[in-house]
Amino acid sequence: MTDSERAPLRRLPLTAVTIDDDFWSPRREVNRDVTVDHQYEQLEAGGCLDNFRRAAGDGGEFEGMWFEDSDAYKWIEAASYAQASEPTPERRERLDRVVSLVAAAQEPDGYLDTYFQLVEPDRKWTNLAMMHELYCAGHLIEAAVAHHEVTGGTSLLDVALALADHVDGVFGPDGRDGVPGHEGIELALVELSRVTGERRYLDLAEFFVDRRGAPDSRLKWETLNLDEIAGSADVDEGTRSVFLDDDGAHDRRYAQDHAPLRQQSTAEGHAVRAMYLYSGATDLLLAGAGDEELREALERLWENVTTRRSYVTGGIGPERAHEGFTDDYDLPNATAYAETCAAVGSVMWNERMARLTGESRFVDALETALYNGFLAGVSLDGTEFFYENPLESDGDHHRAGWFDCACCPPNVARLLASLERYVYAAGDGAAYVDLFVEGWADVDIGGTAVTLSQWTDYPWDGDVTVEVEAVDGSAGTAEFDLNLRLPGWCDDPSLAVNGDPVPIDATGGYATLDRKWRAGDTVALSLPMPVERLVAHPEVEADAGRVALRRGPLVYCLEGVDNDRPLHHLRVPTDSDVTAEFDEDLLGGVTVLSGDAVAPRVEEWADELYRPADDCEVESASFTAVPYYAWDNREASAMRVWVDAAKGR
Amino acid sequence: MTDSERAPLRRLPLTAVTIDDDFWSPRREVNRDVTVDHQYEQLEAGGCLDNFRRAAGDGGEFEGMWFEDSDAYKWIEAASYAQASEPTPERRERLDRVVSLVAAAQEPDGYLDTYFQLVEPDRKWTNLAMMHELYCAGHLIEAAVAHHEVTGGTSLLDVALALADHVDGVFGPDGRDGVPGHEGIELALVELSRVTGERRYLDLAEFFVDRRGAPDSRLKWETLNLDEIAGSADVDEGTRSVFLDDDGAHDRRYAQDHAPLRQQSTAEGHAVRAMYLYSGATDLLLAGAGDEELREALERLWENVTTRRSYVTGGIGPERAHEGFTDDYDLPNATAYAETCAAVGSVMWNERMARLTGESRFVDALETALYNGFLAGVSLDGTEFFYENPLESDGDHHRAGWFDCACCPPNVARLLASLERYVYAAGDGAAYVDLFVEGWADVDIGGTAVTLSQWTDYPWDGDVTVEVEAVDGSAGTAEFDLNLRLPGWCDDPSLAVNGDPVPIDATGGYATLDRKWRAGDTVALSLPMPVERLVAHPEVEADAGRVALRRGPLVYCLEGVDNDRPLHHLRVPTDSDVTAEFDEDLLGGVTVLSGDAVAPRVEEWADELYRPADDCEVESASFTAVPYYAWDNREASAMRVWVDAAKGR
Repeated sequence: MTDSERAPLRRLPLTAVTIDDDFWSPRREVNRDVTVDHQYEQLEAGGCLDNFRRAAGDGGEFEGMWFEDSDAYKWIEAASYAQASEPTPERRERLDRVVSLVAAAQEPDGYLDTYFQLVEPDRKWTNLAMMHELYCAGHLIEAAVAHHEVTGGTSLLDVALALADHVDGVFGPDGRDGVPGHEGIELALVELSRVTGERRYLDLAEFFVDRRGAPDSRLKWETLNLDEIAGSADVDEGTRSVFLDDDGAHDRRYAQDHAPLRQQSTAEGHAVRAMYLYSGATDLLLAGAGDEELREALERLWENVTTRRSYVTGGIGPERAHEGFTDDYDLPNATAYAETCAAVGSVMWNERMARLTGESRFVDALETALYNGFLAGVSLDGTEFFYENPLESDGDHHRAGWFDCACCPPNVARLLASLERYVYAAGDGAAYVDLFVEGWADVDIGGTAVTLSQWTDYPWDGDVTVEVEAVDGSAGTAEFDLNLRLPGWCDDPSLAVNGDPVPIDATGGYATLDRKWRAGDTVALSLPMPVERLVAHPEVEADAGRVALRRGPLVYCLEGVDNDRPLHHLRVPTDSDVTAEFDEDLLGGVTVLSGDAVAPRVEEWADELYRPADDCEVESASFTAVPYYAWDNREASAMRVWVDAAKGR
Repeated sequence: MTDSERAPLRRLPLTAVTIDDDFWSPRREVNRDVTVDHQYEQLEAGGCLDNFRRAAGDGGEFEGMWFEDSDAYKWIEAASYAQASEPTPERRERLDRVVSLVAAAQEPDGYLDTYFQLVEPDRKWTNLAMMHELYCAGHLIEAAVAHHEVTGGTSLLDVALALADHVDGVFGPDGRDGVPGHEGIELALVELSRVTGERRYLDLAEFFVDRRGAPDSRLKWETLNLDEIAGSADVDEGTRSVFLDDDGAHDRRYAQDHAPLRQQSTAEGHAVRAMYLYSGATDLLLAGAGDEELREALERLWENVTTRRSYVTGGIGPERAHEGFTDDYDLPNATAYAETCAAVGSVMWNERMARLTGESRFVDALETALYNGFLAGVSLDGTEFFYENPLESDGDHHRAGWFDCACCPPNVARLLASLERYVYAAGDGAAYVDLFVEGWADVDIGGTAVTLSQWTDYPWDGDVTVEVEAVDGSAGTAEFDLNLRLPGWCDDPSLAVNGDPVPIDATGGYATLDRKWRAGDTVALSLPMPVERLVAHPEVEADAGRVALRRGPLVYCLEGVDNDRPLHHLRVPTDSDVTAEFDEDLLGGVTVLSGDAVAPRVEEWADELYRPADDCEVESASFTAVPYYAWDNREASAMRVWVDAAKGR
């Protein structure tokens, strides 16, 4: 049986998983109690909700970015997830109110996009490249599915179905040609098809995936015929220029429209769009559509992203101008764009690839993005956000409360609120533990209900205990494969069942334990977490001569506030001892790394600016590093992930 | 006798010095025969000369940048100097023609600025900050002095005198207040005063130097009252924004107007302006004006520039937005602005400081800028120019034939054509050899005419022979101090007179030989030139962990075209042997440096992007370096001055 013939794994329902974890629960509580409310207030303050009121008949001018509807949808999605883990009547009431606003704005034929309704009602669907009409529709559908699955209600699902039917009536082989300039609706349509059992939505998703990169690209035509499409009044030069290359010619890479997806080998263009497209395409395969060629393309693109175009933090898309990918190994640190939304997209895509393949390397990539490039995107107090996530700062880069283009904050909120999705999976006669997060899950394994619980201090410690809490099988036992992920970062994991060491039988990066389980059985997975000094591939110019510190899944950084020398003074030996110590009072509780470094002897320098190298001595110094996700939560100071390396002492 | 009480040295007349040097003569011939002609063609092509014709009565619209007159003046200056070393009837005829054009454009009252004459005749002198009226006048005066001194004619000097008198009538304690937004006229007025013996011009120069930075700054008033001044139609946002700080408030540093010069301690703002201001102020002191406070300020500023704000190439002004200075030790490599004109300005100022003080450290700085940061500004074939001089390139930075703002090319031409000025100096009973350039000079030492000649292969070799060719003294002998500069880069110079070693008696960085000289006496100065690996001060973040190669006065760089590994792979040991070998066929003949390096073993890397440092081996490699001035004269490739250092092997 080849990998591609194996049945995909199943995602567990959000409500089947409970997270009660020292690391994640405080972040999720802040997310629920602060971030989601904070974002609701921004929706009101920025006019986003007013746009729905205006479209519903209140009248008045559209306010904000033309794709601002999506902020409301992402908020609904996040708030729905929050209801799953900690329902409150207030949030429920607020959700109902926003859903009502959205529903009221929908036109009788199902159309819904307040920008077009209020500003350019006669130019609907004419500027797919830039106006994000289908992107907003996608977010509405995602929100509706989440809202339905968590609340059981259909108030928003009905809106989404009407809009999806409208879109299905407009686009397709027998209708209008075109693909979204900003992907997202593809994965949403697959979800909608899954929830409703309606094949049409899957077919439409497939149409959007397959038409992208066609020689007669609608997106190209639009960019070259600006006078005939919507948005001329609102789309600025910058928004247009991303579709042009350096010579002013049309550049189809920005929206992954340069070739059919099946023929693509490198991740190109806007990173968030790419992730959403790849996610939607993977969803097609998960739903039984697509083909082997599509699967191979996705594997190829994943290899390219993971082995050539990812920061050590899991951040992707180094370039600001296109918010996207550039060339292999082009990974500058101080100017890294590495948008928070792109890390969210990476988590989304990797989860799908993990389900599709049953291979843990995708969860490794997910974990790296989740604990580092993504988590840095939100402040510890949940009120401020990074849009860009550089790996080096002179102390001038800080989170902000909101953005004109506010895609990242609600994306952070919906991912944190739906973390349950990423912890476990189920397969034929098998349960999978992907992330090490305290809590429990009800897994249906071939009709047998099994409850698994996890106990761990991850990511600070690599000891994980999984207990089979309850088995609703014959005689209280059930035979199934319990698969525990073996993280790629761990060199020597060990395993014990009910206290007895067992050899590790690894498949696809999981330790597989095939036995007849009964309630009370425990599995202890031990993942030693030495501090590692990583180097980057020699083609990564930005990291030449530098090392990054990693412990377990966490990438570390040096912050000026913790170090008594300027960060560019410090050279970290590649072979010295590094101490890892948990400090419960620091940054909400983090394991701090510290060790010896060498530094130039500054006192030696009088007033020369340059002197012979052999005249210069170094002296002993020390460094302190904190997890990258926690940086910029104290006073402003410089930061470096990649620090200069010293060979030995 | 303190330094400041010592009589300043004297510059030799250009015509008293002859350069016949394997290194410089080919560059100067190209400059005379190619560059100066090429630039004349640009003056015609760009409309610069037509502007004078139009102002003289031909009519028509002003063409080009509003300060384009200065291009013609700098061309006249360069062409005049070229006539000094290699007069041709064609160039003389062309010079006469351009001078006639300029003279014809002058208004009866002496006013001359074709932009204002053609575009805003009613708004003369209203926008000193941005419109460069006084800057152009300064270049006219400089050109006129050069033209007069070389040709003996007064055709342009008369124009300059009429304009200077006009300016003197407009500005001054009893006239209009104000200072030039772009300095330059100060040094020109001192020159004019010297040539004419007219004190008024010196007083006006002093007025301009002393009024700068006054609390009631005219420049500030202009920037805040844009509607009342000239240029609103032509001055773009960028030109205005340089006078504003990050908060949009007026920032007087750009034009060194933030404080009176005597109170300044750090070099601020536009680097070329700063250099011209400091040069003019130093000229005041050389002319016997100014005071000790001014001298101390200049010494302080020089210390700041030299020990905090200079690239190893002598380039200054790292920042593009203001073409200028930023903070101490802020010296990024790839984005270094380091304008060619700023290096010209540095040479100009350092020559004046050297004359004022008789100290060779100023000539050291001059030499570094001349052989590196300046000389890189022009291609070996004399037809292409750098405006910016980065110290690191990915292969995309190249010289261009001309620029919209074409200040650099004619500045290069006038400096190369007047190199004679920098080689020797004279003092009371003393001759000075500053630069090591083959040729000869007639020096008047207290009424005795002495001819000195130099023989050397500098900068490729540090052996210099100075011969007293002829002495027009009593009995064919003359007693005077022969001072040979001891370059700061040389650790162990040695000296011989008529073949006999003599101990070095050093004063102010010169080896002083006080004796009765007769024709045929020779002095052999030997300056060993080991290859040095320099490191930068620990506060220079951009150079942390890196070394630069220097041999003698030349800073070297690695170019991709000479190296078989990407430059970021190479780590140059700080203590290994480096070979220096002259290659007469390369880049017009250069000494090439080569040696061992270490590099990552790329074959070890499979498809990982990051891996533990202790798994990574290095392998032997080699590097080849060429002089920085010669870079980008072959196929496009990457370049680095600062290369990663490896400690030992």
